[in-house]
Amino acid sequence: MREHFELRATDAGGRLGELTVPRAGVTVETPALLPVINPNLDTLSPRRLAEEFGAEILITNSYIIHGTDDVRERALEDGLHELLDFPGAIMTDSGSFQLSEYGEIDVTTEEILEFQRAIGSDIATPVDIPTPPDISRERAADELETTQERLEIADRADTGEMLVSAPVQGSTYPDLRETAGRHADATSLDVFPVGAVVPLLNEYRYGDMVDVVAAAKRGLGADAPVHLFGAGHPMMFALGVAMGCDLFDSAAYALYARDDRYLTVRGTHHLENLDYLPCSCSICAEYSPDELRELPEDERESELAAHNLHVTFAEIRRIKQAIRAGNLLELVEERARAHPTMLDGYRTLLDHAAQLERSDPVSKGTFFYTSQESARRPEVLRHHERIARLSTPDSLLLTEADSPRSDEYDDIWRVEPPFGPFPRDLSKSYPLTAEVPDRTDRAALEAAVRGVSRLVEANPETDVTLAHRGWPADVVARLPERVSVLDVAGDS
Amino acid sequence: MREHFELRATDAGGRLGELTVPRAGVTVETPALLPVINPNLDTLSPRRLAEEFGAEILITNSYIIHGTDDVRERALEDGLHELLDFPGAIMTDSGSFQLSEYGEIDVTTEEILEFQRAIGSDIATPVDIPTPPDISRERAADELETTQERLEIADRADTGEMLVSAPVQGSTYPDLRETAGRHADATSLDVFPVGAVVPLLNEYRYGDMVDVVAAAKRGLGADAPVHLFGAGHPMMFALGVAMGCDLFDSAAYALYARDDRYLTVRGTHHLENLDYLPCSCSICAEYSPDELRELPEDERESELAAHNLHVTFAEIRRIKQAIRAGNLLELVEERARAHPTMLDGYRTLLDHAAQLERSDPVSKGTFFYTSQESARRPEVLRHHERIARLSTPDSLLLTEADSPRSDEYDDIWRVEPPFGPFPRDLSKSYPLTAEVPDRTDRAALEAAVRGVSRLVEANPETDVTLAHRGWPADVVARLPERVSVLDVAGDS
Ligand SMILES: [Mg+2]
Ligand SMILES: [Mg+2]
Ligand SMILES: [Zn+2]
Ligand SMILES: [Zn+2]
Repeated sequence: MREHFELRATDAGGRLGELTVPRAGVTVETPALLPVINPNLDTLSPRRLAEEFGAEILITNSYIIHGTDDVRERALEDGLHELLDFPGAIMTDSGSFQLSEYGEIDVTTEEILEFQRAIGSDIATPVDIPTPPDISRERAADELETTQERLEIADRADTGEMLVSAPVQGSTYPDLRETAGRHADATSLDVFPVGAVVPLLNEYRYGDMVDVVAAAKRGLGADAPVHLFGAGHPMMFALGVAMGCDLFDSAAYALYARDDRYLTVRGTHHLENLDYLPCSCSICAEYSPDELRELPEDERESELAAHNLHVTFAEIRRIKQAIRAGNLLELVEERARAHPTMLDGYRTLLDHAAQLERSDPVSKGTFFYTSQESARRPEVLRHHERIARLSTPDSLLLTEADSPRSDEYDDIWRVEPPFGPFPRDLSKSYPLTAEVPDRTDRAALEAAVRGVSRLVEANPETDVTLAHRGWPADVVARLPERVSVLDVAGDS
Repeated sequence: MREHFELRATDAGGRLGELTVPRAGVTVETPALLPVINPNLDTLSPRRLAEEFGAEILITNSYIIHGTDDVRERALEDGLHELLDFPGAIMTDSGSFQLSEYGEIDVTTEEILEFQRAIGSDIATPVDIPTPPDISRERAADELETTQERLEIADRADTGEMLVSAPVQGSTYPDLRETAGRHADATSLDVFPVGAVVPLLNEYRYGDMVDVVAAAKRGLGADAPVHLFGAGHPMMFALGVAMGCDLFDSAAYALYARDDRYLTVRGTHHLENLDYLPCSCSICAEYSPDELRELPEDERESELAAHNLHVTFAEIRRIKQAIRAGNLLELVEERARAHPTMLDGYRTLLDHAAQLERSDPVSKGTFFYTSQESARRPEVLRHHERIARLSTPDSLLLTEADSPRSDEYDDIWRVEPPFGPFPRDLSKSYPLTAEVPDRTDRAALEAAVRGVSRLVEANPETDVTLAHRGWPADVVARLPERVSVLDVAGDS
């Protein structure tokens, strides 16, 4: 077990955890948002981030500090905490992002780690190679090797109480990301950024982002705190958390504000196009869009940044509450409707249902079926696995009817889309207490058919009859031939 | 045209409008929320509702005022506006709800209208019969007759500048609701509450609610401002607006607060069960759940009511912005995931796509396909109607491929799920500029097949070839037989 990170609750791939940051003497609850602070330019002061927004941790760039003479001197003299006036934990980036943007940086991992330690960083970052998506496999593998060497250097470095992150690279090659995750996990490093996802996010490739994170997670242990590096839009936090990310950083709240862009969990608006402020925060309750537009530029920027950050921290709280309540995937269901590319992200997340199932609690509140995608949730998959292990009598009626029409069977089980069949004594247990719409859909019926098929395949000696309520013929046709089928739609 | 109500913008069945309330000398922008004020007990003062929350109109109960001696005397003497200290418009209810709850009230329509006028109400309500759902048709028709007599009495009454509402009853009988709508619309009354939906809402019967509203709307003119009477949960506002409701009233914000219940657009939480406050409002940014729980009861109630109202008004602003931007149905898509019964509501809304289509603008921003339900949106229906009117050559290739593989056809059109075929010169026009997920779904393919079928049926002399990318055989099988089909999934 990694001693600095403890899980408190899980839901699908999502986790509530506690990251202990010894050098700062604080414990950060995850999922956490790290506001990005540019030491040369703070839109909202770190003190205000802590006191007004509840920020427990922030991230700043040690490479920028290193390269700015007066800031460097003050950081070395007074330390980052005093420089920034922030009481929580401070993570520092190494300049890898600058490397990816501008092609080179002029420090080594040893130097930048030593510098981060000298300025009082609580979580430092080595100089990894942020390998972009879609490049040749050869280059991805080569660059990963370099990243891994840097991690090994970092692992051997004398870093004292300071935590050190171990970025996971590998471009868009799932096997490389998984290998990278496994390698990073084998070091004694502490925090695991999934690196170079920004190009994917910039192109709204949420499906590819999910595949990349899923692969990295397969390599990392469950006890590894995972940072989705560079992901600051609250629209996709729930999706990222559901896949197993614990830390997010946001430069967006400030950068977008500078550009008059207004964040919501449904996407970004340009202030110019807003006739109303679609948010409950104090800024949006106080101003009209015209009043915001008429503010002096500096003030408008800081008010917009405050709105952006209110929305962002509220989504983090919403996600934490959802994990506690066991309805994180219901939240992802909603966020998936923010944009077609978010729907791709959710559909891709469900490709990994078996992986999510491993951390999903066996029992939660109530399963809500809220779209055809719900039919592919880990709980449905788990029930189908369970079906194959249930013992069955010689003859069995599976029925949707309320009052079974016959006693010519040894036993009678309910069948309910999307789960399929289950014996009566499971009907009060999760997920079979599900709330489902009156108007079902084909995906739910097909999932129920998969459930029936699992039962029949696992019990070749059982005679199975299915009494359904008007399922379409081409759905029923997917059942194994030896299932007897009755349509009881007309029955009371 | 009803002179007191003007439409500014529409989206699906939703409308942005202006309700002019002459007696108050104010214009209320709709969709509007009317906080319910109990004159004996105000959780948040009306003045604060106006100044802090931007309430332009509120509703209070004239029957309670009438029945409370000291309040009645003050109302008669000083007028409602002074009594409540509210600068906006004040609507008064008649006691019909009390009638439905307690069986009888002891005033006539003439008396209560005269009383409402005497106390200075801006929008009065006659004493209609709030006929519950699911009762016999005979009783529903009988009671509707009584309601209609009362509306005629109200119509003849001397009410001066005061607006008067005309409730639309008819229980769960769509034809009665439609008749009731038509009758109410034929009076000179001003505001049209769809009555007695509270029992449906209490049972989460959002599908039935939608059917009831859709029926009433078929009877009412487009210029009739419609009040979804008693609907105060922000979770369902977008759905109600999309079906054509303009006014909502909320007692919930205060009643729920009294009971430590916390509203969100995703449902209701009991404060006791919250580990985090999943909201960006000033209350939720300031307090932790424990801090809220530890407040003295009165203060906790008023802070919770303030949160509830911030959330409620923010949703109204979000809906207005969505109508302006032309993405109201995208918002309904999200809200439909709050609960399986909300999904039923949305699926039912789409049963009325042809009705919604009539008020849906021909061109908007960008159509987002965000669930299989999107395939049934009014824009898809309209495109299918349009397809039947397009002129076609003798031979036509409909293709999903980027570079058509042949010039053996007179013309080549794109085919895109969920819309189906369209000629090249429509490709830049709404809704064919749609954003769709990379991972499509069966509903989208089936809708595209319906589009192809419409084209083929309307043009029996055209030879049609469809080149699709790997559509399932049983979807392709729904095409008319004379369509030639190529699968180009393997082609580049
Ligand atoms: Mg260490
Ligand atoms: Mg009049
Ligand atoms: Zn805001
Ligand atoms: Zn709040």
